[in-house]
Amino acid sequence: MSEENQRRHGYREGLGGELLAELLGTFVLILFGCASVAVAVAGLPGSGRQSDAFGPGNWLIIAFGWGFAVVFGVYVAGGVSGAHINPAVTLAFTVRRAFPWRKVVPYVAAQFVGAFLAAAVVYSVYSWAIDAFNAKAGLARNQSLDTFAIFATFPAKYFDGSWWGPLLDQIVGTAVLVLLIFALIDTRNTAPSANMGPFMIGMVVTTIGLTFGPNAGYAINPARDFGPRLWTFITGWGDIALPGSYQWFSNYFWIPIVGPLVGAVIGAVVYDLFIGQVVAARAAPLEPGLTNEEAAETRSKTA
Amino acid sequence: MSEENQRRHGYREGLGGELLAELLGTFVLILFGCASVAVAVAGLPGSGRQSDAFGPGNWLIIAFGWGFAVVFGVYVAGGVSGAHINPAVTLAFTVRRAFPWRKVVPYVAAQFVGAFLAAAVVYSVYSWAIDAFNAKAGLARNQSLDTFAIFATFPAKYFDGSWWGPLLDQIVGTAVLVLLIFALIDTRNTAPSANMGPFMIGMVVTTIGLTFGPNAGYAINPARDFGPRLWTFITGWGDIALPGSYQWFSNYFWIPIVGPLVGAVIGAVVYDLFIGQVVAARAAPLEPGLTNEEAAETRSKTA
Amino acid sequence: MSEENQRRHGYREGLGGELLAELLGTFVLILFGCASVAVAVAGLPGSGRQSDAFGPGNWLIIAFGWGFAVVFGVYVAGGVSGAHINPAVTLAFTVRRAFPWRKVVPYVAAQFVGAFLAAAVVYSVYSWAIDAFNAKAGLARNQSLDTFAIFATFPAKYFDGSWWGPLLDQIVGTAVLVLLIFALIDTRNTAPSANMGPFMIGMVVTTIGLTFGPNAGYAINPARDFGPRLWTFITGWGDIALPGSYQWFSNYFWIPIVGPLVGAVIGAVVYDLFIGQVVAARAAPLEPGLTNEEAAETRSKTA
Amino acid sequence: MSEENQRRHGYREGLGGELLAELLGTFVLILFGCASVAVAVAGLPGSGRQSDAFGPGNWLIIAFGWGFAVVFGVYVAGGVSGAHINPAVTLAFTVRRAFPWRKVVPYVAAQFVGAFLAAAVVYSVYSWAIDAFNAKAGLARNQSLDTFAIFATFPAKYFDGSWWGPLLDQIVGTAVLVLLIFALIDTRNTAPSANMGPFMIGMVVTTIGLTFGPNAGYAINPARDFGPRLWTFITGWGDIALPGSYQWFSNYFWIPIVGPLVGAVIGAVVYDLFIGQVVAARAAPLEPGLTNEEAAETRSKTA
Repeated sequence: MSEENQRRHGYREGLGGELLAELLGTFVLILFGCASVAVAVAGLPGSGRQSDAFGPGNWLIIAFGWGFAVVFGVYVAGGVSGAHINPAVTLAFTVRRAFPWRKVVPYVAAQFVGAFLAAAVVYSVYSWAIDAFNAKAGLARNQSLDTFAIFATFPAKYFDGSWWGPLLDQIVGTAVLVLLIFALIDTRNTAPSANMGPFMIGMVVTTIGLTFGPNAGYAINPARDFGPRLWTFITGWGDIALPGSYQWFSNYFWIPIVGPLVGAVIGAVVYDLFIGQVVAARAAPLEPGLTNEEAAETRSKTA
Repeated sequence: MSEENQRRHGYREGLGGELLAELLGTFVLILFGCASVAVAVAGLPGSGRQSDAFGPGNWLIIAFGWGFAVVFGVYVAGGVSGAHINPAVTLAFTVRRAFPWRKVVPYVAAQFVGAFLAAAVVYSVYSWAIDAFNAKAGLARNQSLDTFAIFATFPAKYFDGSWWGPLLDQIVGTAVLVLLIFALIDTRNTAPSANMGPFMIGMVVTTIGLTFGPNAGYAINPARDFGPRLWTFITGWGDIALPGSYQWFSNYFWIPIVGPLVGAVIGAVVYDLFIGQVVAARAAPLEPGLTNEEAAETRSKTA
Repeated sequence: MSEENQRRHGYREGLGGELLAELLGTFVLILFGCASVAVAVAGLPGSGRQSDAFGPGNWLIIAFGWGFAVVFGVYVAGGVSGAHINPAVTLAFTVRRAFPWRKVVPYVAAQFVGAFLAAAVVYSVYSWAIDAFNAKAGLARNQSLDTFAIFATFPAKYFDGSWWGPLLDQIVGTAVLVLLIFALIDTRNTAPSANMGPFMIGMVVTTIGLTFGPNAGYAINPARDFGPRLWTFITGWGDIALPGSYQWFSNYFWIPIVGPLVGAVIGAVVYDLFIGQVVAARAAPLEPGLTNEEAAETRSKTA
Repeated sequence: MSEENQRRHGYREGLGGELLAELLGTFVLILFGCASVAVAVAGLPGSGRQSDAFGPGNWLIIAFGWGFAVVFGVYVAGGVSGAHINPAVTLAFTVRRAFPWRKVVPYVAAQFVGAFLAAAVVYSVYSWAIDAFNAKAGLARNQSLDTFAIFATFPAKYFDGSWWGPLLDQIVGTAVLVLLIFALIDTRNTAPSANMGPFMIGMVVTTIGLTFGPNAGYAINPARDFGPRLWTFITGWGDIALPGSYQWFSNYFWIPIVGPLVGAVIGAVVYDLFIGQVVAARAAPLEPGLTNEEAAETRSKTA
């Protein structure tokens, strides 16, 4: 029995199995991530005071909440699909690391489905808290940007309607995300072993939350933003959700899609320019189903 | 001398040893976990202002307190009993991972005893702080939900008496807990090695605290809730403890027992449906007394 | 060249080298630990409002500050002296793990000297902040319990003069510390490898801070408390420092010495009773200068 | 193909490649680090209340922000340049660990360029937030120490104009940083393996932030301070930036350059005095491009 077959024993096989894993990984990501904002906005006693919903204490909850959401999304799917759980990451791998183009659409579809379903579960558990928050604030659901924030993103007021500000924020945030993912899985560099890579990758997202989060909610992932956004559109947030229009902005929805895709390619190219490209035969670690260790073995055999 | 015997040298042998470990592991879990709430509610200067007891800063203390409580409960018992320290986890292992039915009742009993004893120790150390808190708030002990919260759980006011809300919360929370435990010990997937698994498992509980905690106190463990609840019933919290009745709810006590058991089975089935079931011969890592590394060796021999 | 000699090459040799390492490790512990309280009490803008000095946000700074202080104290000395950096830990090792009695007094002396010197450095850097804090509060130095708290510990007001309350707290806190240290270095159990043990041991102290800290300042280490206490006695805090007398307590100084020593022995005995004693030939991992991995090798040779 | 050549395959070769890595690593450090202060000062809703900008909640954002900034700066460059990302660290390696003098100037230049470019990106993304903050506070840019704090450092008011206070702070902070870096990469000691060293090194900086940060902004790195300082001088902060003069201080700029360089040498000497010097043949782990594991192999071959 080959090493590869042995490891896979009992797994769902082939692309179907990879898509199930990708769906479940993205589900875990959004379940934890959106729910951490729900805690900060509407869960804790004392919430409902709008100006405090994103104060420093709550911001730490959100930053570690989303970061660990990534950690565990990657641990769930890592061994099967490679755990992209983000269309921008899938794109970066495809253009720079020999991930096959034919898998891109199925992967991205699985990510959106997982994100949408997770938003539904968060909504189910938090519908009481959301309704209580809005009743206390005296707002109809389609006026409540704070409860919308549980699910999807919007830009800070200080951008004052500029689309370039939040777009730049999304490009920079996703570029540094992809740059660091590439570093953290590059076994020629100082990639963590002992399967601690997913922990460090999640902490990248915690760090982006601590450093760029308040600008535009650090979507840095089109599925993370659009899946839950679609759910809120269906369940009553109206124009706030789609096309993303409110007091200080109109038609926001495309920014957390386009920004991350552009940023991901920039981050990938910068890593390869400054640190060095992995040649095709060495791209194995990025194939789904191979851990760093196995990939290292593979490389030492093919070298 | 066989590998197994060698590793066990000096350990308490057999089921008795496993039960002692399970008891001690659950003791550590509850000692740290309940005491972290005691710090937030009654320990820090300035506590006694009830509305702030579960504000963001204190919530971080509680979320990391309970998370590390799991980390160290698992490190204490992991090598001997497998460190379930949670009847819901024992149930999930039994129905999906070949943990023997005959050990279920003894394990669960050990978990309850450990939790009960730990509640007694927390009470002994914090009785001064509890009494001072209640004196300041002008409440008798059996009126003080805040000090009861040190030991066991209750639902948020926003559920407004609904039993389905907190039950759903417990089901979802425990399902994702078991799902992630299964991922984190599945050596075909990206399970952490170097015995860092217990750290990541504890961080799952920190994350559940940051994401679902305020709904119903994230018991997600029948022993964690009922053991200390019984202690508070004996020591004066009355109806608040058992059957769990207060201003906005009646008879709460069964929800953190039933919810976690249902959720645990759902989480286990979802992992096996989406990622793939571990066949019987590969269930070794879940047997008490085997580390991931040893289990991996075992599998490579039996494959 | 033997393995042992090779590893030691370039190290200070013998007991003298171990004592230098123990001194430096304790120095790092106290330098970071006391300075984290200095940040919370007197460093951050807005400090000087006494009631907030130990609020939740500052408590997180103190809990992670002292926890990482242990992490790095252990990393500095671990490979040379075994990094006890705590007389209570030295005692626990001596009575249960074959650490030689003849080294106890020198180790403890090195720990006290390291703690005293670190208090001097913290005082040097923070003297401006301390004087500004006391000027703002209108207190003479020997009236300022808040600035004394930077260096050493005192019991919470709610103990109301009881010496049994804080003593029990010190016993429980140190018992669980030693219990977990024994678990985390027991390679038959789930001890972290890859030299991540010091990280997890430090996080035990963070957790004790989050769970028992406010009762009596979680000294859980006679050198940690008495070394800096002596420094403050010399530099003007008077009776508050020695014998530790103030409004609600008299002669406190002996509690953070006696409590930890008693607790350490209890924790060690509990671990051995519940999990199993390491027989003499297996005590190698606790000898200074042996990493877990090396000890495991040693054991497999002697088994 | 030799082991060394194999690992390097696809990397930029030679000193040029090392400088690109050093530049990119320092870029990541400053991008995350400065942006974390931007979040605390001007990003979160409610910012603009000046006295709260460095309160406990925000201080945790800054301490973990800068700490993870180091973590990921080291992961990006570690395998190529050794990831000094700090001229003080380069100096310490050069005087104590056989890093070649001829590389010092190029390394330091790359670090300053990386820091300067990162400050430009942080400024680009946060210019809206900065302008909104200053408008709200009614301050011109060259009067706004709070927004300057996003980029570079200044001493606390309580030093009351003393240059010795912040200089001592910088010396102590950098000494302990270098001392701990030396411990964490010393494979004779308890250096983390599995490439978790960069995580622990970053947590040293988090700890320094939690323990000495408020004194003088914990630059502990001449490039970290002077690169962004130069950027702010160019973009309108005037005398506050260079020479660093404001209400309670004049000509501050040299302290976060001189203090770290002096402290780095002291930390390096203390490690070697107390723990033991690594002899020349064993200095390999500190050469760029060698991981701890490889260095250990190298040593075992040369021993």
